[in-house]
Amino acid sequence: VNINEIGGEFELIQRLSKLIPADNNEVVKGIGDDAAVLRIAPEPAPYLLVTTDMLVENHHFCRTWSAPEQIGVKAAECNLSDIAAMGGVPQWMFASISLPEDIDVAWVENMYRGIARSCQTHKVVLLGGDTTRGENITINITLLGRVEPDRLCLRSAARPGDLIMVTGTLGASAAGCALLNKGKQPSKYLMEKHLTPTCRLDISGQIAFHANAMIDISDGLGPETRHICTQSNVGARIYARDIPIHEEVRTAARLLRVDPLEWALSGGEDFELLFTIAPEKLDPLGTCKTALFKIGEITDAAAGIVLIESSGRAMGLPGGYDHFK
Amino acid sequence: VNINEIGGEFELIQRLSKLIPADNNEVVKGIGDDAAVLRIAPEPAPYLLVTTDMLVENHHFCRTWSAPEQIGVKAAECNLSDIAAMGGVPQWMFASISLPEDIDVAWVENMYRGIARSCQTHKVVLLGGDTTRGENITINITLLGRVEPDRLCLRSAARPGDLIMVTGTLGASAAGCALLNKGKQPSKYLMEKHLTPTCRLDISGQIAFHANAMIDISDGLGPETRHICTQSNVGARIYARDIPIHEEVRTAARLLRVDPLEWALSGGEDFELLFTIAPEKLDPLGTCKTALFKIGEITDAAAGIVLIESSGRAMGLPGGYDHFK
Repeated sequence: VNINEIGGEFELIQRLSKLIPADNNEVVKGIGDDAAVLRIAPEPAPYLLVTTDMLVENHHFCRTWSAPEQIGVKAAECNLSDIAAMGGVPQWMFASISLPEDIDVAWVENMYRGIARSCQTHKVVLLGGDTTRGENITINITLLGRVEPDRLCLRSAARPGDLIMVTGTLGASAAGCALLNKGKQPSKYLMEKHLTPTCRLDISGQIAFHANAMIDISDGLGPETRHICTQSNVGARIYARDIPIHEEVRTAARLLRVDPLEWALSGGEDFELLFTIAPEKLDPLGTCKTALFKIGEITDAAAGIVLIESSGRAMGLPGGYDHFK
Repeated sequence: VNINEIGGEFELIQRLSKLIPADNNEVVKGIGDDAAVLRIAPEPAPYLLVTTDMLVENHHFCRTWSAPEQIGVKAAECNLSDIAAMGGVPQWMFASISLPEDIDVAWVENMYRGIARSCQTHKVVLLGGDTTRGENITINITLLGRVEPDRLCLRSAARPGDLIMVTGTLGASAAGCALLNKGKQPSKYLMEKHLTPTCRLDISGQIAFHANAMIDISDGLGPETRHICTQSNVGARIYARDIPIHEEVRTAARLLRVDPLEWALSGGEDFELLFTIAPEKLDPLGTCKTALFKIGEITDAAAGIVLIESSGRAMGLPGGYDHFK
């Protein structure tokens, strides 16, 4: 039985989770969020956050499109984004790399420079890792950070009545990717959004203090909303007309004759943050509020997870990418 | 320029290390030991240990020789061994896996069961990680642990006059591997040593309290001794006749007409511990002393790193395996 036949990546993760004994007292949150949350000293001491992500050549990046430094930046940023989504501050990064025998050393050094550059931007200490041989380039990043208990934003913390917010426009990374796949040259903006996306640590700390649930958008708005709803046992109503989409994404969509909403819902790798917040907490967010978009609200679980189309019609919220489907 | 042309894996790591800014105050030890050592609270609070290892199919394991559960055990044990080598206690494990599209789900579950079994043995909490697609199976384990500051054993802590000790016989994993490579069936003992090596957390805690430098033998006695000497700025004299080699390893060596010493010096993956200790600290080691082997002594750096052959002749200590040579 292969992974597709059992229902894909998330079903596999479900099965593997069952092989793991129940959480213990030091584990505040184990599998199932953007990072693991560990109690290393009694509260109110900060929790330790740990996230790990594996990037495989030709699945997560390819050498023909990306300069090595861009690949390094992307590997670092997608992990930094996981710490941002918990409300945390990143601290220490480890990078394991498998490399083909004939790889150019300069390529490896430049890729590593990209990782180091992202670390420097976010005051993260890069501490090495493992280097080994393999047919494909595989980069595994592990990032440790800390979070104050009162800033921790779990996927499971959304409540009916919360507003659903995103920190920026969606679909640009997918638009850039689609253009490259069709042999067309993306604009500078779409190229950057796809090849060197950046995490939202610039505002995640401010948001975390007031938000309930938070998650980063790495697989598209559709599945990320569903993760929050499933884990919080709530429903959601998302308004299609309120999903922010950049003008250049709309232009690319017209060129390729696709619905730009599809990129926002399933595209992934935008690394914006999706969060839920009680309406009365919106004002205290202060200045950073101006950069945020309200796209819907959290409902009771019974109301389901729905997308309200521009026509007013309600449909099940679509979208999502599975590595094994 | 490829990795072989610049001098191999260790030269690459040297180059990458130079791209990383100097250590900061929270980093007790960064790159260059079995695990990173991080100060998460003022001493005498324990330090946080972090180690990460990447295993690639057909380089570190192969599906024809190993059952999936054995591969999982080996992936876990080689990381547990790194924590043992620091004098630490392992706590939390994360596993990232890339899998080919057509992999049998039962294979993945059984591999994961192997990881979980090793975790259970050592009271480590397995906390998931990442699952993605790739052409090769690649397993990246990240293991966190803690160590009391007075038990921390760095590679850089050996002093002239120290005894050099190992915790068990060497070369059995390499002997098992060599037999398999030649199409011969290894004995049950050699098979187990190669396919499911086990870390020495059973005695590492006792040793760590008295030892100076410690390292685990993953690449063979030769390079591990050299790591300690380089980082401690000392020399070493190893006596060939005192290197413990199991009778079954000698039998296999006779069969394949090779020198069993070569397996001990370069074979690797024994996951025994190599440590240095002041002579007067040997008695306080107590009962666990009976299982240890003295193989040489630490000298001044000027005396070099030498192997004294059975004939009495001194030669430069040979041995080592490089993934890129």
